[in-house]
Amino acid sequence: MEEFLGDYKRTVYCGDVTEAMIGQELTVMGWVAKQRNLGSLIFADLRDRAGILQVVFDSTVLSQEDYAKAESIRTEFVIAAKGKLRIRESINDKIKTGKVELLVDEFKLLSQANTTPFFIGDASANVNEALKLKYRYLDLRNSSLQQKLMIRSRVAKSIRDYLTECGFLEIETPFLGRSTPEGARDYLVPSRVHPGTFYALPQSPQLYKQLLMISGFDRYFQIARCFRDEDLRANRQPEFTQVDLEMSFVDSERDVMDIAEGMIKKIFSEYKGLKLDYAFPVMTYAEAMDRFGSDKPDTRFGLEIKNITELVDGCEFKAFADNCTKGKSVRAINAEGFASMLSRKEIDRLVELAKTYKAKGLAYGIMKEEGFNCSFAKFLTEKQIDNIIKKMNIKVGDVLFVCADTDETVFAALGALRLALAEKGNLIDKNRFDFLWIVDFPMFEWDEERNRYVAKHHPFTSPKTEDIPLIATDPAAVRAKAYDLVINGEEAGGGSIRIHSKELQQTVFNALGFSDADIKERFGFFVEAFNYGTPPHGGLAFGLDRLIMQLTDTDNIKDVIAFPKVQNASDLMTDAPNIVEDKQLDELEIALKNGNN
Amino acid sequence: MEEFLGDYKRTVYCGDVTEAMIGQELTVMGWVAKQRNLGSLIFADLRDRAGILQVVFDSTVLSQEDYAKAESIRTEFVIAAKGKLRIRESINDKIKTGKVELLVDEFKLLSQANTTPFFIGDASANVNEALKLKYRYLDLRNSSLQQKLMIRSRVAKSIRDYLTECGFLEIETPFLGRSTPEGARDYLVPSRVHPGTFYALPQSPQLYKQLLMISGFDRYFQIARCFRDEDLRANRQPEFTQVDLEMSFVDSERDVMDIAEGMIKKIFSEYKGLKLDYAFPVMTYAEAMDRFGSDKPDTRFGLEIKNITELVDGCEFKAFADNCTKGKSVRAINAEGFASMLSRKEIDRLVELAKTYKAKGLAYGIMKEEGFNCSFAKFLTEKQIDNIIKKMNIKVGDVLFVCADTDETVFAALGALRLALAEKGNLIDKNRFDFLWIVDFPMFEWDEERNRYVAKHHPFTSPKTEDIPLIATDPAAVRAKAYDLVINGEEAGGGSIRIHSKELQQTVFNALGFSDADIKERFGFFVEAFNYGTPPHGGLAFGLDRLIMQLTDTDNIKDVIAFPKVQNASDLMTDAPNIVEDKQLDELEIALKNGNN
Repeated sequence: MEEFLGDYKRTVYCGDVTEAMIGQELTVMGWVAKQRNLGSLIFADLRDRAGILQVVFDSTVLSQEDYAKAESIRTEFVIAAKGKLRIRESINDKIKTGKVELLVDEFKLLSQANTTPFFIGDASANVNEALKLKYRYLDLRNSSLQQKLMIRSRVAKSIRDYLTECGFLEIETPFLGRSTPEGARDYLVPSRVHPGTFYALPQSPQLYKQLLMISGFDRYFQIARCFRDEDLRANRQPEFTQVDLEMSFVDSERDVMDIAEGMIKKIFSEYKGLKLDYAFPVMTYAEAMDRFGSDKPDTRFGLEIKNITELVDGCEFKAFADNCTKGKSVRAINAEGFASMLSRKEIDRLVELAKTYKAKGLAYGIMKEEGFNCSFAKFLTEKQIDNIIKKMNIKVGDVLFVCADTDETVFAALGALRLALAEKGNLIDKNRFDFLWIVDFPMFEWDEERNRYVAKHHPFTSPKTEDIPLIATDPAAVRAKAYDLVINGEEAGGGSIRIHSKELQQTVFNALGFSDADIKERFGFFVEAFNYGTPPHGGLAFGLDRLIMQLTDTDNIKDVIAFPKVQNASDLMTDAPNIVEDKQLDELEIALKNGNN
Repeated sequence: MEEFLGDYKRTVYCGDVTEAMIGQELTVMGWVAKQRNLGSLIFADLRDRAGILQVVFDSTVLSQEDYAKAESIRTEFVIAAKGKLRIRESINDKIKTGKVELLVDEFKLLSQANTTPFFIGDASANVNEALKLKYRYLDLRNSSLQQKLMIRSRVAKSIRDYLTECGFLEIETPFLGRSTPEGARDYLVPSRVHPGTFYALPQSPQLYKQLLMISGFDRYFQIARCFRDEDLRANRQPEFTQVDLEMSFVDSERDVMDIAEGMIKKIFSEYKGLKLDYAFPVMTYAEAMDRFGSDKPDTRFGLEIKNITELVDGCEFKAFADNCTKGKSVRAINAEGFASMLSRKEIDRLVELAKTYKAKGLAYGIMKEEGFNCSFAKFLTEKQIDNIIKKMNIKVGDVLFVCADTDETVFAALGALRLALAEKGNLIDKNRFDFLWIVDFPMFEWDEERNRYVAKHHPFTSPKTEDIPLIATDPAAVRAKAYDLVINGEEAGGGSIRIHSKELQQTVFNALGFSDADIKERFGFFVEAFNYGTPPHGGLAFGLDRLIMQLTDTDNIKDVIAFPKVQNASDLMTDAPNIVEDKQLDELEIALKNGNN
């Protein structure tokens, strides 16, 4: 029953048929998206990756046998049809080819189809996601999904073209590597040849790309799959794709940022039609925290944070006064015009939100016609209140939120409050794209759990040259030659200038509390590589999945990955991971601890 | 001591400096390949990825301090130098820039270097391979290796350009997949979230690419890493790279072969300068076996095999006569002019070679001035001997080798003999490239061990349309729509038209002896996908590593992989695979069977 193509050759994709082809003999192939049988005429929408074309089976044109075959056609059958293109009687404005149709002379029925578990088309938007993932190959027939993956493919090509043009070489690095305890949890691969040992899948090609610089490849890139065995939050995947690059003979952040900025401008202008004829703004980490409480601020709206510590220092409100010492502060956001938008209950919800970021609470006040109504007024002098109103520029209808705590907590709480208010107030223009470089990150962060400093970026990041002396005296004050590109409040990518001096690397390892044995065990061969002539170098990595999400206007990462995994890291289509044969485990000389083998 | 670049910007790569730049101020950066101190002048060869440039430090030009710094320079130090390009007094013909040199005005010493474990340069060819692999990042500084990887990068780009031009979309498929018992041994990845279950790393993206066709992507490709946990022969790697493609709405082999042939022509003309203005020859599997005893014949030399079964049928030589039945044969190679090249001992070695392919032996004869001198003459009539001499065209100085056995053994033994003779006789023109398509492969092979037929290609390969009825009656006679491209006797790539009919797929699975339960267990979701409308489709995969080996004239696969593994699948540089922390295994709920944890 299923026919072969024989001598049929497609002449054009369905979606690429134009009015200029009217009168021509065309051969098209695809899936039947829908069909209507009017008795002596059958209309079918034929779908391929380029779009849809109406094809017409006419009982007065086709043989009786062929017409019967046409009548057997159901949704998702695959056909190849030859015929002449003609103008359509009733125009369909919804599709590109809506003014024409193909009158079929002859056709082949290439494949029949059972009724699909869900209808392919707009209606499938409401289908249960698990069902769509189980039949992912069917969901991928939906134009919205197919378009996103086609754009992904084209963007990857554009990136490769651009970086090649800039002198970068794509060099493949290993997937079967070595497990390093630093960083996230590795996916392990047991070795059969060396029982008891394991490879690790790469979390990033970091070490390899730096070695390639030491080797003299000068400019490297790779669109590389990376792996992290973490408990997945929404919109994370255990395997994800990085646009990874590294370049030699640079020690200014700007050299790498310029390459990256050019790449981002290229793809956002090509695929979003943005005019990006300006330099992306640059902001220090300190300023970003100060103004937005975040190192990836969404600058598409205001609601900036202001520091009012000085204004409340020594006041009688203990919650404020106790937080006016070093490392603590009192900061506030004026939610302009929010008085009418926030009920008491909604304000309570925002206070609860702040508490999830460890804040003990939020003080707040509402400016009414009759005056400033706030809980802490009675503890402050009139002058102090006036100063706050002036500094925060509070007008009638505004709501003031104040957080007093350690800087870290204040930033986290007010940063989150800011985003929540913007959403509540619908302040974000979804058509706007704000690109922002964040620079001068702290080199070290104090890790309470490990009771030592850890590298904020990674231990190969170079400190700012002028801050090198501070490594010994005040590690928390050392800034790194690190940079992140933030797009609309999301970290699109980041990187750093690396340390090229062996001595400096040693100093940093010492500051991180790594013993010589630790260093040898973790990075031994890598640190040794620095002994043999290392060029100044730096690099950066972008998360490709997230870039594609922004380019295709989706907030679901699964929309931009052909065969994604769900939050518990399983693939509903193949049912991976799965049990394996005992023989396979025997060969690897490993056993399951639950005793099932 | 190690300086920073400061405001230095490279103006040109060392190797790209030309005579046209004489008189210009240039800034170059790189590694010192060698240096000579003549007292008041120091000459150094500065190396970057483009080549070498001589730089001159002149004590009459530089400050005393700078000259002292120049005197400290040793091999593999990294420097950046500014100066004026001038003509060189003594020309060096061995390097591109041999007519010029840079007189250094000022320079920075960016990185010092310890004495490297081996000298970078031609001399390192003789260094122990294990040492070079341990310090791979240093060996990669050698121009010969660096050039190969740069070509690899450019070839990959050319392939992507070509396939994109042909309408193919590069689509990434998962690395964390499901283990399937068919095929080679999988690398497994234990799941932490689902203890007791495993992912498998892909042996190829086969299932995914066919699903993408079912999804309607129409033309897919991917330069994809693949994994096989096999005991490595020389020139195999546990992870290797495939150029993988698949296209829809084709059911003729030629459609896929044309795309692939275009790609191969493009890269071999771009990177080998070959003129490939002809169609690659096509040979059936049957003819290739018949003439060359191999499905990947090296056609750069003759020494073809001829079938002399008819001529010896019924003769009195039992070793011949017993092999004149169906499935067996007597075949011979005339090694023209080899009499003077082969001693008795060497002939014995060739007989031993044949035995390693299960042949019981080889009969042979030498045509001397005085007549044909052979071991089996006494058993054959003069007429029979004459017929053999005539058919094999044996002249004075020729050596005849005869093998009588099952067809399979005869082909294997004579195919190997042919290659050994060509090497002995130095018959292979290393500058010649023979491209050859092999088609019409058998669909099934009998597997003695499993006592059933197995798929020669894979179980989704389509049989030739006209051979479908034979699946039930004579599986061994069924030919597949499969094709391999052979380059100089090596399989460069291969593929097939796939089965797009569910019923036909079922018939093939039955012929392979898969029960319904087997099918469901192994390919359940995949076979189900065929139920919902499958276009006729086909594809192919090339081994990228091997293509690059041919393009860069190396027979060592490690030369074309940045960080290769050795034969026991370990990486001598990172020391992967390695032991991991007990905590990591505990989280995966697996234990080592040797009781070490």
